[in-house]
Amino acid sequence: MNIIEFEPVGRRGECPEDESLLDSARRLDVDIVRLCNGVGVCGRCKVQIVTGDVSPLSAKEKEFLTEKEIGRNYRLACLTRPLGNVKVHVPPESLTAPQRTQVEGLKLDVAPEPSFQSLDVELTPPTIEEQSADETNLLCALNRVDACALSFDLEALRRMPPLLRSENWRARAAIRGREIIAVESASTRWCGMAVDIGTTKIAVYLVDMESGKTLASRGLMNPQISHGEDVVSRIYAASRSAENAEKLQALLVESLNETLASLCAETGVDLRGVVDAVIVGNTAIHHLFLKLPVGQLGLAPYVPALRAAIDVKARDLGLEMAAGAYVHLLPNIAGYVGADHVAMILGTRLAEASGVTLAVDIGTNTEICLNNRGEMASVSCASGPAFEGAHIRHGMRAAPGAIEHLRLSGDRLTVQTIGGEPPVGICGSGLLDAAAQMRLNDVMDSSGKILPHSRVRVREDGMKEFVLVERPGKEDITISQKDIRALQLAKAAIRLGIRALAEGAGIAESEIDEVIIAGAFGTFIDVESAIAIGMLPPLQRERFRQVGNAAGTGARLALVSLGERRKTADMASRVRYIELAAISEFNQKFADASAMTEI
Amino acid sequence: MNIIEFEPVGRRGECPEDESLLDSARRLDVDIVRLCNGVGVCGRCKVQIVTGDVSPLSAKEKEFLTEKEIGRNYRLACLTRPLGNVKVHVPPESLTAPQRTQVEGLKLDVAPEPSFQSLDVELTPPTIEEQSADETNLLCALNRVDACALSFDLEALRRMPPLLRSENWRARAAIRGREIIAVESASTRWCGMAVDIGTTKIAVYLVDMESGKTLASRGLMNPQISHGEDVVSRIYAASRSAENAEKLQALLVESLNETLASLCAETGVDLRGVVDAVIVGNTAIHHLFLKLPVGQLGLAPYVPALRAAIDVKARDLGLEMAAGAYVHLLPNIAGYVGADHVAMILGTRLAEASGVTLAVDIGTNTEICLNNRGEMASVSCASGPAFEGAHIRHGMRAAPGAIEHLRLSGDRLTVQTIGGEPPVGICGSGLLDAAAQMRLNDVMDSSGKILPHSRVRVREDGMKEFVLVERPGKEDITISQKDIRALQLAKAAIRLGIRALAEGAGIAESEIDEVIIAGAFGTFIDVESAIAIGMLPPLQRERFRQVGNAAGTGARLALVSLGERRKTADMASRVRYIELAAISEFNQKFADASAMTEI
Repeated sequence: MNIIEFEPVGRRGECPEDESLLDSARRLDVDIVRLCNGVGVCGRCKVQIVTGDVSPLSAKEKEFLTEKEIGRNYRLACLTRPLGNVKVHVPPESLTAPQRTQVEGLKLDVAPEPSFQSLDVELTPPTIEEQSADETNLLCALNRVDACALSFDLEALRRMPPLLRSENWRARAAIRGREIIAVESASTRWCGMAVDIGTTKIAVYLVDMESGKTLASRGLMNPQISHGEDVVSRIYAASRSAENAEKLQALLVESLNETLASLCAETGVDLRGVVDAVIVGNTAIHHLFLKLPVGQLGLAPYVPALRAAIDVKARDLGLEMAAGAYVHLLPNIAGYVGADHVAMILGTRLAEASGVTLAVDIGTNTEICLNNRGEMASVSCASGPAFEGAHIRHGMRAAPGAIEHLRLSGDRLTVQTIGGEPPVGICGSGLLDAAAQMRLNDVMDSSGKILPHSRVRVREDGMKEFVLVERPGKEDITISQKDIRALQLAKAAIRLGIRALAEGAGIAESEIDEVIIAGAFGTFIDVESAIAIGMLPPLQRERFRQVGNAAGTGARLALVSLGERRKTADMASRVRYIELAAISEFNQKFADASAMTEI
Repeated sequence: MNIIEFEPVGRRGECPEDESLLDSARRLDVDIVRLCNGVGVCGRCKVQIVTGDVSPLSAKEKEFLTEKEIGRNYRLACLTRPLGNVKVHVPPESLTAPQRTQVEGLKLDVAPEPSFQSLDVELTPPTIEEQSADETNLLCALNRVDACALSFDLEALRRMPPLLRSENWRARAAIRGREIIAVESASTRWCGMAVDIGTTKIAVYLVDMESGKTLASRGLMNPQISHGEDVVSRIYAASRSAENAEKLQALLVESLNETLASLCAETGVDLRGVVDAVIVGNTAIHHLFLKLPVGQLGLAPYVPALRAAIDVKARDLGLEMAAGAYVHLLPNIAGYVGADHVAMILGTRLAEASGVTLAVDIGTNTEICLNNRGEMASVSCASGPAFEGAHIRHGMRAAPGAIEHLRLSGDRLTVQTIGGEPPVGICGSGLLDAAAQMRLNDVMDSSGKILPHSRVRVREDGMKEFVLVERPGKEDITISQKDIRALQLAKAAIRLGIRALAEGAGIAESEIDEVIIAGAFGTFIDVESAIAIGMLPPLQRERFRQVGNAAGTGARLALVSLGERRKTADMASRVRYIELAAISEFNQKFADASAMTEI
């Protein structure tokens, strides 16, 4: 049987040769638009064949595809059948519901190996002749050879006496190492929580610890934003007063408590059965969440308080979970390359890649890791919040009405908004497309300067702007020279990081076999646009893989499997950290990386 | 060199033959009255020779001693010298400051073997080239082979970064097993806290963990008294509402936090250096302190939630100590024989006694343990708070002005008060003396009935009372028939317990080689009086040993030495618990034990 894989949503499965790509997609829960219900008359189900052989291009398809699209291997999913294993890229415009959350990522591919053992017990009720303490009674019933060496979590013990009596002396115990961390009713479903705390967004997953299945997930904003958009301002705030540090931690914890409770309610899971959690974030977020001092992170030599992984009782952080639940935080690599980067490496299987593989996790801060045939190095680039729509005049988050993609042809500009709503602003992927289209249509030169064009006008303050959408009676949606500069700084930082890694490894960028693009934003960018403005190196489209929130995937892997969790210690120590600010000829290299053209 | 031992204060040491007992006492910090400064003219330094040979009785001594005192081996300490090893009993009236706290006990006799290792480290400051995380840096500096297997307590880690920087990268770490529980300045003195929480009183000791020396101690009232004088009423209160349980725990914790902070201030010890604690109490107090459910303790079959020893993070209980400090609670034996009993067994070395040894720990609840040539059994007797002065019309705690001892000769009654203050009431030991003197002078018959006597009068309500002190203008201090009955119930419970243990072991009470009397109250009772009213069996005076707060001593032993701590698990499982309420012919035996005469 052939295997079909859909990008960037990360679904894969078997597909028979007589099934259209559209039907395979439906079977695998990939929501491709099917206005005509798959009879080849609406032309909305365009997909790009990344690798593999498919049925020959039909005459009907040619009606709907441009020459350029045909050249780039675009097809209509309803009229195409696989002839072998095939990898299909679904462009955002072909998805019914824009996958705009930060929780999407690769499916887990490991057998569960939880951090605890679950044991069902039936106790003998005590009598006046046999006045067994509940604890002794449970240990006897556990029937484990090392029962006498087991210890009890205090909170688990506190809950036990009434529970045993109301449950008729039956219970289910969760034992972690030698510690009994929870004793609950015999019907309890042990679950775990995986969390990726980004500077701007948070992804929370509720996972069944027996099956390893993700039961529910949720994306939310990081509430710390009220104390600063980037980590540097939050480090400053937290190190200025203990109250701030307290507040920054409490905001996260409240947010996670609310989200977990809501995910539990949604799935019918008892919060008292959530026995484990894996939490990742960049080093500053990691420290703020643990309420570790961050002052030293903000000053040279920028050292973390903690590099190694740590297990902490959930209650020590204020997290409401099972009685004696633990929270595991993956290791950090350096002051600006944190546990989320380690999770990304784990989630993308980057450490196991054989050739030259680059993984780029684009966010407010962008971390990049190069695995050059086993030698791994990482950099951190302050790409800033431009991709989140911040500091862009008409920028906005990826929410309904945001322009997410656009094409310029002569004077004609077509825009696509999230949810098909009337345009209200532009999000990161739209901004990237806009710059690329401006460059490709000579509305902008390679220095990033906006050139004369029918859609370009000069504002009263002398600033040039490119009009995306005219909205009579409302302010037009535009992109100004200043917006282009913000994007340019962000993309230059990323490209400089990629180049520094290649140089450090002694290879040319063209030797990179695969570029993994991780992160919610990265999932939705048009790679061609990113290449057109020199953000990514001009490699063949097939070498790029957009994997969604890989840090979230890594967190889930580490949650579900102790084996996966153990791998991260090695990863963290194996990755060499390159301080971007310390590379030779930084200024010249940054200027070179700033060119707004394919480089 | 000869060894001299002073009872009940529990001091022992070498003594030269040419040194008077009084001088030895002074050298060993036993405060015997010395009005004439030891020249044999005041006659206040009366002591009783319990065992051993001393210099012959001098003519001068005969002037101050009655025939009876001479018969009971009383001597003047200033005029007596040892001729070999000698054990000396110092009656309360010969002590300068009445030892009225519950903290006095035997001196510790073990080599310190703390639960943690102390290591001094000097770190290499990080640089931009070597951006070591503080945690990694400390682990490297620790120079332990298993350094990479060490984990950090979160709070210890939180304190570390600013500390390392202010202390110029030098520090002292406390490592417990594989966990770094505290990192403090290099001058930190690691200390520990031992606590004996009684139903009525609490004893707190601050101990230097390196030397094992007790630096300071304090006796205080158990603030839970506001929620009930006995444990049964507190169990009821706590099981009625979570708020009550919360409050009962908080009262103890606040009290301990205040006391520890004050002991630290007094001794110049940094609270952040108090890394360990051992806490003992009866099972109900133990559960209330841990906020474990107590409902099942109050209902048949009266089972504890927890029998085994437990280690809990101090912060989980709200105790303010070193960053990652632990609190160790010794094991319980049964629902009404708790960790304080185990501590008493440890503190008296009862488990190691060779013959037949009885240990009686008198308190609001009295626990008794018999070690019959290696076979150990315990009972719990609800002796009630009469010995604390409660429910006695003129009863009071052992505070200044309390009548602590008295003698009746014909109509003449002489009383001794604590601190020599004018009498204001009567405390437990005074009550015991009063009953004994009334019995010996036929003011009371063996059933406990008050008989006619010049000091006996009938109150308006028909109740007979014995006048201790007439106080013109104030209410006279008296002992009523009702007071005698309360005492009778208390002493009967204790004697029944002793008899049940002897019967269970198949021995006669007369076969008991040694009776150890533990507890603050037990330290100050006149053993002769206790025998005279049938509370204790009529054994020779030499077989009794009053050791002060043995539970407190046991707690200190377990604090100072892991070896001692480990012994308690074996003790707790070795001791057979005898349920007094379940013995055969209980009513008859209780009535027999109630006789107010030597039995």
